[in-house]
Amino acid sequence: MSLPAKVKIVDVGPRDGLQNEPAPVPAEIKIGLVQRLQDAGLKNIEVTSYVSPQWVPQMADNHQVMAGIARQQGVVYSVLTPNLKGFAAALPDRPDEIVVFGSASEAFSQKNINCSIAQSIERFAPVVQAARAAGIAVRGAMSCAVGCPYEGDVAPERVAYLAGLMKQIGVQHVGVADTIGVGTPRKVRRAVQAALQHYGIDAVSCHFHDTYGQALANTLATLEMGLWQYDSAVAGLGGCPYARGATGNVATEDMVYMLHGMDIETGIDLDKLVDAGAYISRFLGRKPHSRAASALLARRADG
Amino acid sequence: MSLPAKVKIVDVGPRDGLQNEPAPVPAEIKIGLVQRLQDAGLKNIEVTSYVSPQWVPQMADNHQVMAGIARQQGVVYSVLTPNLKGFAAALPDRPDEIVVFGSASEAFSQKNINCSIAQSIERFAPVVQAARAAGIAVRGAMSCAVGCPYEGDVAPERVAYLAGLMKQIGVQHVGVADTIGVGTPRKVRRAVQAALQHYGIDAVSCHFHDTYGQALANTLATLEMGLWQYDSAVAGLGGCPYARGATGNVATEDMVYMLHGMDIETGIDLDKLVDAGAYISRFLGRKPHSRAASALLARRADG
Repeated sequence: MSLPAKVKIVDVGPRDGLQNEPAPVPAEIKIGLVQRLQDAGLKNIEVTSYVSPQWVPQMADNHQVMAGIARQQGVVYSVLTPNLKGFAAALPDRPDEIVVFGSASEAFSQKNINCSIAQSIERFAPVVQAARAAGIAVRGAMSCAVGCPYEGDVAPERVAYLAGLMKQIGVQHVGVADTIGVGTPRKVRRAVQAALQHYGIDAVSCHFHDTYGQALANTLATLEMGLWQYDSAVAGLGGCPYARGATGNVATEDMVYMLHGMDIETGIDLDKLVDAGAYISRFLGRKPHSRAASALLARRADG
Repeated sequence: MSLPAKVKIVDVGPRDGLQNEPAPVPAEIKIGLVQRLQDAGLKNIEVTSYVSPQWVPQMADNHQVMAGIARQQGVVYSVLTPNLKGFAAALPDRPDEIVVFGSASEAFSQKNINCSIAQSIERFAPVVQAARAAGIAVRGAMSCAVGCPYEGDVAPERVAYLAGLMKQIGVQHVGVADTIGVGTPRKVRRAVQAALQHYGIDAVSCHFHDTYGQALANTLATLEMGLWQYDSAVAGLGGCPYARGATGNVATEDMVYMLHGMDIETGIDLDKLVDAGAYISRFLGRKPHSRAASALLARRADG
C-alpha cells in the first residue's frame, strides 16, 4: 500500500457548501469564510459559481465575493462555470481554475440540467476551450459517479464513459463525486479505477458526501490507491438539493484529523480550520456538521 | 488485501451504550431493545453489567433485564463482570459470555478503577478462572488502546503488555478499544498488531468510538488486516463518562451500511436495525447518532 505523504484538499464550502442554504448568506460573510480558510492554510478554495441567479440565487453575488477576497499568493481560487455565458462573466474576476460538471447518470443529467450527458459535454466544450486559451486550469466534476437518486447504482462503465468525454474536450483533471453519499470502499474504488482509464493518478480527485457516514472510509480506500486530492467542505457544509437526506460534503475538519493522525501532510492548521467552521456555523445558527470539530470545540470549552 | 467475507458484530448498545445515560432507562425498554436487536439478526449482544449500583446505577436492573429477555437460540448474550462478586451475581442469569476489562493506559487504570494495570489483572484472574470452570467464554476489553484522556497517545507496546497479561490469566479473546475515539487508521493498525503478538486473528476484535468521525475508516483499516469482529452500538449510543466530548460508539447502522455495501455479510437486516435504533432513540428523546440511520429514516419519510 502506497499512501501519499501529502494530500491536497480543495475546500468547496463557500460554493458547493453554501449554494443550497435556504437563507441568503451575505457576500461579506462568504468573504470572511474564504479569508479564514486561507488563514488556516487552505491552498485551494472553490469560491462561487456563475450560474443564472434564477437557478442559484445564493451565488448571485459572485462578482462581489471574488472582488472582496484578499487574494493570497499560492492559493488557487476556483469557480463553477456551466456555460460560455458563465465563463464570460467569470473571466474579469480572474479565477485560477474553472470547474465544469457532468453526470455519470443519464437520468440525473436529464433531470438536473435538462440534457443528455453527451449534450452537456458539447455545451462544455467551448467553455473548456476558452478557459485553456485564457490560461485557466479546468477541472471536471463527475457527479453521481457511484449512485444516482433516480437510477440507483451507477456502473463504473458510466464513469469511464464520462471521463472519456471529458478527456476529449480537453478537461485536465476529473473529480469522482459521490453526490448522494451512497458509496462504500469497494464501489468508490471501482469508480476511481474507471476514471483512471482516461486520466493519470495525479489528475483524479474524489469528492465525497457523508450522507451515510462513509466518506472517510472511502477516502482511506482511495488514498490506498495512490490518490492524493480531495474535495471537502469546512463544517460539513452543503448537500444536494435534488436528493433528499443528502446531507453535506465530508467535513474538512474530519478529513484533516484523519490525515494528520496518519502523518499525512495537508499544510492545514486544524485549530484555525475549526475556527473557520465555527464562524460560518455561528452565522448559519447551527453546529458544525463535523464530529472532529464538535469534539475539538468541546475540548476547548473544557479548558 | 484479504477482506473477510463475513463480519461478526457485537452490539454493545444495551450495556456500553446505555450505561452513561443520565436519565434511567426502565428494564422493559432495555428488554425491548434487546428483542429488536435480535429480531434484526444480531447474534451477539452485550446486555448489562454486574457492577455496584453505587458506581453504575443504570445497570442495577441487570437481573430483571437478563430474566426478561426472550432468549433466541444462537444468540450470545454477554455481560460485564469486573470482579468475583459481580461474576457470582451474574452466574444465575446464565450469560453466554463475560467481559472483563483492563486499560492499556496506566493513568486511566488508576483514575478509572483505582489500581495499576497489573493489579487489575490480578483482580480479574479468579473471575476468568471461575468463568472458564463454568464453561462460560471470556472476552477481555482493552480500553485506551490508542489514546488516553490523561496520557495522550498510548504506545502499541502498552497494548502488547496488556494483551500478554490477559493471555496469562486465560482470557480467550481481546478487544482493542479506542475508548475516546482519537485513533486513525495507522494508529489502530499498530494497536491491533500489538494485540496480535499474543492472540490469533480470530481472537481479536475492535471497538471504536466515533468521537472524531474516524470509526469506519478505522474499521476498514483493520478489515484489511483480516479482522472480522467488531463492537458497535445501535443508534451510536454511549460515550465515556471519563472523557468529555467522547460521544458514542460507532453506530451499528453505519457499520452495517459499509459492510453490506462492500458485499461483506453480517446476517443483519439493516431496515430492522434502523427500527431498533429509532425505538431507543425515541425513548431517549433524541435522533439516532448515526448518519446512515438518519439518511434512511429521511428516505422513508420521503416515501
